Amino acid sequence: MPVDHLIREILRSKDATGVIISHLPHIRWICGFTGSIGLLIARENKLHLLTNSIYKTQATLEVRGAEVHIGSYPIAKFAKEEGLVNSADRLIIQPEHLTVAELTCWQVAIPGISLIPVENLLNKHVAIKSEEAIAGMRRAQAVSDAVFEEILQYIKPGIHENELAARINYHHLMLGASTMAFDTIVASGPNSALPHARPSDRKLQSGEPLLLDFGCMVDGFASDMTRTVHLGEPDGKFIKAYEAVKVAQEQAISLASAGIEISAVSQVAQNSLEEFGFNEFFIHSVGHGIGFEVHEWPRISSDSSAILLKGYTVTMEPGVYFPGEFGIRIEDTILIDSNTCERLSAIGRDLLVI
Amino acid sequence: MPVDHLIREILRSKDATGVIISHLPHIRWICGFTGSIGLLIARENKLHLLTNSIYKTQATLEVRGAEVHIGSYPIAKFAKEEGLVNSADRLIIQPEHLTVAELTCWQVAIPGISLIPVENLLNKHVAIKSEEAIAGMRRAQAVSDAVFEEILQYIKPGIHENELAARINYHHLMLGASTMAFDTIVASGPNSALPHARPSDRKLQSGEPLLLDFGCMVDGFASDMTRTVHLGEPDGKFIKAYEAVKVAQEQAISLASAGIEISAVSQVAQNSLEEFGFNEFFIHSVGHGIGFEVHEWPRISSDSSAILLKGYTVTMEPGVYFPGEFGIRIEDTILIDSNTCERLSAIGRDLLVI
Repeated sequence: MPVDHLIREILRSKDATGVIISHLPHIRWICGFTGSIGLLIARENKLHLLTNSIYKTQATLEVRGAEVHIGSYPIAKFAKEEGLVNSADRLIIQPEHLTVAELTCWQVAIPGISLIPVENLLNKHVAIKSEEAIAGMRRAQAVSDAVFEEILQYIKPGIHENELAARINYHHLMLGASTMAFDTIVASGPNSALPHARPSDRKLQSGEPLLLDFGCMVDGFASDMTRTVHLGEPDGKFIKAYEAVKVAQEQAISLASAGIEISAVSQVAQNSLEEFGFNEFFIHSVGHGIGFEVHEWPRISSDSSAILLKGYTVTMEPGVYFPGEFGIRIEDTILIDSNTCERLSAIGRDLLVI
Repeated sequence: MPVDHLIREILRSKDATGVIISHLPHIRWICGFTGSIGLLIARENKLHLLTNSIYKTQATLEVRGAEVHIGSYPIAKFAKEEGLVNSADRLIIQPEHLTVAELTCWQVAIPGISLIPVENLLNKHVAIKSEEAIAGMRRAQAVSDAVFEEILQYIKPGIHENELAARINYHHLMLGASTMAFDTIVASGPNSALPHARPSDRKLQSGEPLLLDFGCMVDGFASDMTRTVHLGEPDGKFIKAYEAVKVAQEQAISLASAGIEISAVSQVAQNSLEEFGFNEFFIHSVGHGIGFEVHEWPRISSDSSAILLKGYTVTMEPGVYFPGEFGIRIEDTILIDSNTCERLSAIGRDLLVI
């Protein structure tokens, strides 16, 4: 749906006179602005982007379909001064993306204004990726894939986790990533049992697993992947757990397609882990939306009420974690299509023994 | 002031029964927890850290002085189930660090609860750095200093901005940084006129300025520095503008010490730029607090009502930007002391012609 139609539909549904878009990725989706300070006010027939002087040149270059207003904070006061809002307005807000302090600023600057919180205001629309977004995500994943293959040569006993992380990041940027999408995880041995481990000066050792979780931004779109490899021959517990995680991910990906409930996709992964007897060691959700940011709506979890639609991009990342011993996670970004989905990574999931 | 005294003082001042700390760096300051999901509920005689299962192992290792509760979201409902809050409570909240949606969750989960917003609740206390924090920031700055000297050899015509950024990040991680503190800026020629430029595939050219802005995290503490160098001999306009920025920074740093108003420090930098005729090309604030994060309270700007205290760490980063031509910024992190302050970087500010 074109943005102007969407805005009019939203306004009508809430009998509102405008929408305050405060979530930066949504602002970018609507008008292309990529700065870190900004607010978009959508009226029935016009969009207004408000930002400050630091982004004057950038906003002029980037913004399409919205009038740019350069001013100072507090932004509510500036919006009033520009004549963009008045006390008779009924403005929809994004409650997950507006702080209590910002809400108060609006109420103080414009007495009498009605602010109508609507959760998940644009999520379902933003989650459907454009051709441009999908192409960007493919480029980002291609960079991460190439880096994975490139850095395999450095995985050997004696190299430090943080040295390997430095190489992973370096190769991403050299291959065209603008930045990493999140802090690279390089977790060896027992460190892999911490889902959010940070690279340390621990040296890789033979006989241990190594968990690598990384992604980058290319042209403003994110990649995200995780592989767990093993240095030297693994024992039976590791092999069984690896198989369990791999099968859980395959089951979830087999089911994921347009029209399927997210809760069902999550449940099939959990059921699969349970059959292997590992469900209690799975301590996070099955995956998350990805695109403009590495983590975005929807979360792939059994309490989700959302449905996958064609064009959604999400990760599938089941894992098992044995505190003090080791952890295993396998993660791929997938693109939802009718009756199927596509993995964006070409890197295999069979256990790699190095 | 010890944390338990501070909490009691805050509770008394607002006639409250508890404090909900939702800002993660403040949670870390109080109890040491460094995860990305968590909430701290402070009662008169006890602290409770709430997080989810993904951080169970990490919280057990890190948290001191608080009871750890592992549960699920919404966190307000979990807090109620754990018996940590009830409908008669009067709880202080941090309005800059709580979303409207989270506020609603509390109000729905615990009907009758009173939530009292207090802005800047802990900022003045957290900003005073401990010996451990100062030592960490020194280590982080030492890494950035070493990287600056290391990468000078790569600054030559023909190297791409993003290649230089890749090298800057790589050397930081190899020298012990856990991650970069923010996206490294490498901006050559006209790109330097964008204060938040992103590294592009533009090649460095002779006869142009190059702006480098980077910082890293070491043991959870941040560094931040900016230098603008010139490839080949600069023209008169650049030399004059460089001198103006350098003098503005020196003036601000000369004044900065315990007891001085932040607005005065900001004003002296602006006045200095004005004397050179460049004030209109200075389009951001003079600096910002730094420590647990690269940007934290206080902002160094002329509308600040805060006063510098001994132990504050802030950056001073005046700059001038000529759209389409070039920009110059010089930034150092300083530690406030009685009657003086100390630059944490040992890298000089004289114009470097390469």
